[in-house]
Amino acid sequence: MLEIYWGSGSPYAWRVLLAAELKRIPYESRLLEFSKGDLRTPEFLALSPRGKVPVIRDGDFVLAESLAILAYLERKHPEPALFGGTAEDSGRIWSAIATFESYVRDVTTPLNRWLFNDKPRTPEIDEARAQVGRELDRIEVRLAAHDWLAGTAVSAADVVWFPTLRTYVRAGARNPERAREVNLHPLADVYPNVARWIARIEALPGYDRTFPPHWR
Amino acid sequence: MLEIYWGSGSPYAWRVLLAAELKRIPYESRLLEFSKGDLRTPEFLALSPRGKVPVIRDGDFVLAESLAILAYLERKHPEPALFGGTAEDSGRIWSAIATFESYVRDVTTPLNRWLFNDKPRTPEIDEARAQVGRELDRIEVRLAAHDWLAGTAVSAADVVWFPTLRTYVRAGARNPERAREVNLHPLADVYPNVARWIARIEALPGYDRTFPPHWR
Repeated sequence: MLEIYWGSGSPYAWRVLLAAELKRIPYESRLLEFSKGDLRTPEFLALSPRGKVPVIRDGDFVLAESLAILAYLERKHPEPALFGGTAEDSGRIWSAIATFESYVRDVTTPLNRWLFNDKPRTPEIDEARAQVGRELDRIEVRLAAHDWLAGTAVSAADVVWFPTLRTYVRAGARNPERAREVNLHPLADVYPNVARWIARIEALPGYDRTFPPHWR
Repeated sequence: MLEIYWGSGSPYAWRVLLAAELKRIPYESRLLEFSKGDLRTPEFLALSPRGKVPVIRDGDFVLAESLAILAYLERKHPEPALFGGTAEDSGRIWSAIATFESYVRDVTTPLNRWLFNDKPRTPEIDEARAQVGRELDRIEVRLAAHDWLAGTAVSAADVVWFPTLRTYVRAGARNPERAREVNLHPLADVYPNVARWIARIEALPGYDRTFPPHWR
């Protein structure tokens, strides 16, 4: 059976859990604890030389990197398709994924960290917020007219974007003043279509099993 | 017919040209000149709102982002496959691509810039060289036993990594002292298997048509 190695709150690992649930692939959950050093054991480093989650094991086959795992699961379990039914849809879905990876992924890291700590705001945080804002503005427009980020059904694009954006909701719940200070709270007021899209994903079957345990 | 909008020396655009040649897809080359402002015209911005290459137009269908274009071309023209013939090979190819995107792409930017300018070396350059070196060491080992970066044939992984690594060769030809100073020249001495892999790609049919005109 497919084994998924993940860590609570890792946005990259969350993508893989969401994909497995959407495809209804039976899997064994291998929840690792960062704080216990589970990612530094010789056993885990044999699977994942960089000591990162997610990693999957499927029989003898071991694979790291969330996007690679999504592509593998799509080939192995084609239905329901998460990368579209046509070349055009597949292109649009990968374009939305590449947009996240190129323009959001790294720039949001200092912003996410700041939202959960108590350090002063710096120009780097403001620049990150501005850059993330340019991308959120684009998907806010997209989601005014569509339910999902690409194509006509939930796809790998939604799975890739969701964990990071859901983290902003958590920031608003945990530290509303701080999230409000950078105009990320209440998210439903600032980006109402994004907030509705988040609710749409939260209503998908199996979503609850993917929710980070330490966020509860 | 497929139209490919590209710029001479853009590593991302080069990927798309390589893929089209490897798949023997007929295309019309739309070479844009950065210095003439070709990427800022209203006509081009209508195709590519970020003003970036590569972009393709295929009939009415327009698509940006190199990885998305590779995925689209694979679906539209499946043979020869650039993303493997099995789920496992597809996963390995995407893993090699994700590795480049996560650990090489951004970190190499200041290093590449430094190799072609005359500014002093900084700790950022040394850090970039060290990080790139960790990844080059891994593929040097891989390429000791295999002809290609993933699987048993040339794949999208090779297409994604090649343009950036080929830039180091150009740096060694243009400014050998500088490239030698950061141990990237002669590349065949430092990374002999990588150098042989570069020669292997340069020998592929159609390669010459993808070579950046301003590098000649």
